[in-house]
Amino acid sequence: MKTISIIAEYNPFHNGHAWQIAEAKRRTSADFALIVMSGDFVQRGEPAVLDKFSRTRMALLGGADLVLELPVRYAAGSAEYFARGACSLLASLNVTDTLCFGCETEDPAAFSALSSLLADEPEAFRRYLRSYLAAGNSYPKARLLALESFFFPDSSQSSPGYDSHFASDADPLSPPGNPFSFKTATELLSFPNNTLGLEYLIACRRLKASFDFLPVKRQGASYHSSLPQGNFASATAIRKNPALACGYMPDVCRELYEHAVSGQMLHSIDDYSDLLHYALLMQKDYTVFLDVNADLSDRIRKLLPQYKSFSSFVSLLKTKQVTEARIRRSLLHILLGIRKKERPEDRFAGLSYARVLGFRQSALPLFREIKKRSSIPLLTKAADAKKLLLPSELDEFLLNVRASDLYHITDPGGGYNEYRTQIIRI
Amino acid sequence: MKTISIIAEYNPFHNGHAWQIAEAKRRTSADFALIVMSGDFVQRGEPAVLDKFSRTRMALLGGADLVLELPVRYAAGSAEYFARGACSLLASLNVTDTLCFGCETEDPAAFSALSSLLADEPEAFRRYLRSYLAAGNSYPKARLLALESFFFPDSSQSSPGYDSHFASDADPLSPPGNPFSFKTATELLSFPNNTLGLEYLIACRRLKASFDFLPVKRQGASYHSSLPQGNFASATAIRKNPALACGYMPDVCRELYEHAVSGQMLHSIDDYSDLLHYALLMQKDYTVFLDVNADLSDRIRKLLPQYKSFSSFVSLLKTKQVTEARIRRSLLHILLGIRKKERPEDRFAGLSYARVLGFRQSALPLFREIKKRSSIPLLTKAADAKKLLLPSELDEFLLNVRASDLYHITDPGGGYNEYRTQIIRI
Repeated sequence: MKTISIIAEYNPFHNGHAWQIAEAKRRTSADFALIVMSGDFVQRGEPAVLDKFSRTRMALLGGADLVLELPVRYAAGSAEYFARGACSLLASLNVTDTLCFGCETEDPAAFSALSSLLADEPEAFRRYLRSYLAAGNSYPKARLLALESFFFPDSSQSSPGYDSHFASDADPLSPPGNPFSFKTATELLSFPNNTLGLEYLIACRRLKASFDFLPVKRQGASYHSSLPQGNFASATAIRKNPALACGYMPDVCRELYEHAVSGQMLHSIDDYSDLLHYALLMQKDYTVFLDVNADLSDRIRKLLPQYKSFSSFVSLLKTKQVTEARIRRSLLHILLGIRKKERPEDRFAGLSYARVLGFRQSALPLFREIKKRSSIPLLTKAADAKKLLLPSELDEFLLNVRASDLYHITDPGGGYNEYRTQIIRI
Repeated sequence: MKTISIIAEYNPFHNGHAWQIAEAKRRTSADFALIVMSGDFVQRGEPAVLDKFSRTRMALLGGADLVLELPVRYAAGSAEYFARGACSLLASLNVTDTLCFGCETEDPAAFSALSSLLADEPEAFRRYLRSYLAAGNSYPKARLLALESFFFPDSSQSSPGYDSHFASDADPLSPPGNPFSFKTATELLSFPNNTLGLEYLIACRRLKASFDFLPVKRQGASYHSSLPQGNFASATAIRKNPALACGYMPDVCRELYEHAVSGQMLHSIDDYSDLLHYALLMQKDYTVFLDVNADLSDRIRKLLPQYKSFSSFVSLLKTKQVTEARIRRSLLHILLGIRKKERPEDRFAGLSYARVLGFRQSALPLFREIKKRSSIPLLTKAADAKKLLLPSELDEFLLNVRASDLYHITDPGGGYNEYRTQIIRI
């Protein structure tokens, strides 16, 4: 039995996603596609346009065999944390042969080399990174600058730099026939999809997870593109124009999405403007929440009297040092009550359960395999959490239940109940 | 200089209120009418239909000379707590000659006698009250039953009852010419306005405040009546039919109210449905909040998955033992983050400041008198609180600022800022 795994948001699911699943299965001759998907909130620090069960149904209709929920702490975390959570989940399940990810640069060797460098962080690189961060650069920018300094160290500096460091390295960055260079590195890093893929490789290396990796070039439009190409449109484009989006979805998914559009059931960040405002007014200390540092906390406090909406407050808080996505995530953590782990060693402690959102009946062999090999329980019913999890694990599970309750607060009519919501079976 | 004081909500201000101010001034030949008014939330456990500054302007236009804010902890508290807070504020200011209150039964001696009994709680009465409360009656019901038992003790019971108790009382309930009876007591207690008046007298007796009291019979419609009579309609009737309400307001107030109605700026409890839902989902322990006992807390937890709106949740939580108003207040305390005082002795510790919401220029002599005689600072600017109050007093002040911020969260456009809002001067 062969299983490929994909880490995804499907926000919403479209032709590109369906193609990726089919292509990955084809190239690896896999029997099953296992998806780790964000729940109701996504990595941009926003609510998903459609709730997790609707997106699960679309994914299953579009070719996925089993969809598991990436807990919200990771799903709405930094790229590094997102990747760490998802890869940790897959590592615990212990059934993945190949981890497939979308990319713009289909160059497995380059991914491998750059991820090794970034995962191992040679001392010289780490020093550059620290100094660029201290100088007030955002993390992606600082990383790029640190790479440049690492590859081309100033002659006046004493750091060993690329050549001297890797000359003595048993795991050289440049395997024969695939010269790895600063140019390759910057190319990889210039596309968001490559960056996420890199984070998966870094996370897996740190977790010592032994998957094969399959980068698959994205079809048609690129990540942030708002112009569709051929049958493919990016999720960004689809979110921007929900009414036209249906043309870029598998036929089987369209009805569900059209129904949500016509029923005005799509969620957007400003649906939560009043709730965030309330949360900000009620909290005394923002720094207890994940990703909120003292600087951001001070700015929130200072600018709060000018609060108008979630999205406009993000713009108001924006500085050169920090990306809007990071600010959105920080505010989302305050809204959802996602706190920093009190003990630093708990931060990457791994996941304690795998929550099933849906599956194809034909995926039962994969289920059995997971039950045999997984080191964490597979939850098919929310109500089972109480008997299967330890108290601290249950708290983390309940944080996710609450996040979904909060996601649905603004639904007209209300009445969402995670415990009464059936997982999707098709 | 003579000052009458009135404790009010003015939710909203109408002809009956204007008449009461004029009549009270006339009967006492008072120079000034000092109003202690609820802020943005009222004793029914609801947001006021209009914000505190709009209601202040209407009150000043309608005859008030100075309007002070009753802090939200008291304004949205039980009748007893509401009265205690307001009377304590007036006692601290030390300028009130007569406390005037609306009533249905204009019988000062009966008010005095019944309030003495209820304030002093003779042991027999207290015992009855406790047993009726323990039997699951609401407080008003238990009080009435306890009074009945007190006046007509079972022959089999050993409690002294009315006659024997008051035979030896130096402050007899029945002064000559005004026989006080159970019938008089139940009559007084059968009208909400009488009940509040009684609470004022009880509070003042306990505070040893030496005001004269002037009960003034309400004109036209009674408290909860939804049918106007003559030029008078109750605030309840006006809230139910905002469009018709303008006919029952002083001409000078009408424009302001009409503007609010046409701009859909009236507030109602279900404007806060999502925020309350959010607060209930986020809080782990409801019993830390004022008025929330363990029973109610358990019911909230149990019924939360059925939450639809603020008002429907109140109905859902209703039991025989507890009034809807009490439930609304409890939920409001959770929404606004109003906690129980940690130390019981702080519960009735008195107020530490008097916040001015507005005044007539002609009331400057009253201002000067307050500054001379008051034991607490008079705040005319929110920003002054920081320099005039002790840290714990400032916390209580900030709780009120936050309550007003929360009141305005749902305003379209947002941007309310308590510190930049000018008090009303006319």
